[in-house]
Amino acid sequence: LGIATAEFVPVQGPDELAGAVKKLGLPAILKTCRMGYDGKGQWLLRTADDVARAKSQMPEGLQRTTYASDEAPCVLERMVAFSRELSILAVRSRAGEIVFYPPVENHHREGILRLSLAPAPQLNAKTQTAAEDIARRVLEALDYVGVLAIELFECDGKLLANEMAPRVHNSGHWTIEGAVTSQFENHLRAVCGFPLGSTVAIGHSAMLNLIGDVPNPAEVLCIPDAHLHLYGKSPRPGRKLGHVTLHAGSNKLLAERLADLPAFFQRPIFCLDSALKACSGSASASAL
Amino acid sequence: LGIATAEFVPVQGPDELAGAVKKLGLPAILKTCRMGYDGKGQWLLRTADDVARAKSQMPEGLQRTTYASDEAPCVLERMVAFSRELSILAVRSRAGEIVFYPPVENHHREGILRLSLAPAPQLNAKTQTAAEDIARRVLEALDYVGVLAIELFECDGKLLANEMAPRVHNSGHWTIEGAVTSQFENHLRAVCGFPLGSTVAIGHSAMLNLIGDVPNPAEVLCIPDAHLHLYGKSPRPGRKLGHVTLHAGSNKLLAERLADLPAFFQRPIFCLDSALKACSGSASASAL
Repeated sequence: LGIATAEFVPVQGPDELAGAVKKLGLPAILKTCRMGYDGKGQWLLRTADDVARAKSQMPEGLQRTTYASDEAPCVLERMVAFSRELSILAVRSRAGEIVFYPPVENHHREGILRLSLAPAPQLNAKTQTAAEDIARRVLEALDYVGVLAIELFECDGKLLANEMAPRVHNSGHWTIEGAVTSQFENHLRAVCGFPLGSTVAIGHSAMLNLIGDVPNPAEVLCIPDAHLHLYGKSPRPGRKLGHVTLHAGSNKLLAERLADLPAFFQRPIFCLDSALKACSGSASASAL
Repeated sequence: LGIATAEFVPVQGPDELAGAVKKLGLPAILKTCRMGYDGKGQWLLRTADDVARAKSQMPEGLQRTTYASDEAPCVLERMVAFSRELSILAVRSRAGEIVFYPPVENHHREGILRLSLAPAPQLNAKTQTAAEDIARRVLEALDYVGVLAIELFECDGKLLANEMAPRVHNSGHWTIEGAVTSQFENHLRAVCGFPLGSTVAIGHSAMLNLIGDVPNPAEVLCIPDAHLHLYGKSPRPGRKLGHVTLHAGSNKLLAERLADLPAFFQRPIFCLDSALKACSGSASASAL
């Protein structure tokens, strides 16, 4: 579709890995082409040992039967020195109407989304238009109906498509309180053949994922403009158990809300430092 | 509790009705003290025929056993020439914390709520404080936990308590999109023993009840900032099947949204004329 991505080499099976590594060099990331999430289906390859381990773990045989004949089960991707990760949520109705939520800035730790800022701070109109163009091309090429999220790396003002999620997406949970119409309502409007709702953001939101454990609800609910969502799932390391959306009239106020969060959220895993930098306009680096 | 109401006479049973009518005069309204809603459990008495019919229909015997010994099953109330009906939703937590949503202006037809404007237009601070005082007295006297709604008549700048609903209330449905925390979330926060959420209104809302029939969803969903709620109930005359919340940044814009509603809502039953008057600052009369 003419959408820029990281440089990559298809990998049909374990036997092709060494050749792909030779072609791209290290560090690189081996990814399954489908069903990856939260760092699952990804191998970060920095050393020969990493390559050997990935080779023994990557899918082959049985899994391959679920793929189209011209599709590799994996790709090896060159590492990208991105300045930040953005995502764009787009919605297409049965009638072909397309709307976009404002792009979001995402912060990950251990391959899992930890925090999203919406709308993405310091986003220029050119980048926003570029993100919308990418999403529109995908939606139209797939004759897609519903919400679709595309994760994008921002590098030197350019966008590289990273992954796409053909569904409502974690980086769109802020829309429940932070947009006129939530991603969930717009997904239903789309698949039911109704007109789509406004995607305008109401103020500024930060969405924090609750992964592995949850705070004392009272500590969150006493924060002004904080909304707590618990999914009723049993705790397990790395499992998304809920999220908190903070809401504010400006990024400055949002930064204050983030800085005031109780101790539970002050652990490095919540990415508060990089979020605070982003909200106050400094450059921020999102670690893998 | 020292809360002003319409002048009324307790009516222990059918035999006491004639005496009560003699005392208060006509027109008057006979009301059951409990479980009334949507005009059910109410008899508007204008003529001797009305009195005779109410006497044959009003509860006695069996129903009386469900009441406390010092409580009449009915009251006869003198008609009140109110300028408008307001309601206030208040929330009290287990810890005794109390918060109030801004009072709402309600418009009825045939004894059923048709439209609410939130916050109530042209409400002065004195009336708002008076409404909060009434609600606070009730919440504290009952050691109440959760959301409670009190319907109030505004007469010459004074408030008369009309009915109360010890639960989330139809006139609070606008809070789903129109307030920082919805009445439903605050009810759960209260009964779960959590801190209560902000009751601040976001912009201006109009809530229209869908009673007896529902519009084509597409006709509502194409309206900017309209939110459609369908309850999944089978249609029946007089039955609440859903509601629509319109949202705007100002009452002027809200009036424009109301005026632009599709034909379905232009029937007199939706009270658009009186709502438009209220939004644009004219005096409005809410018919029973």
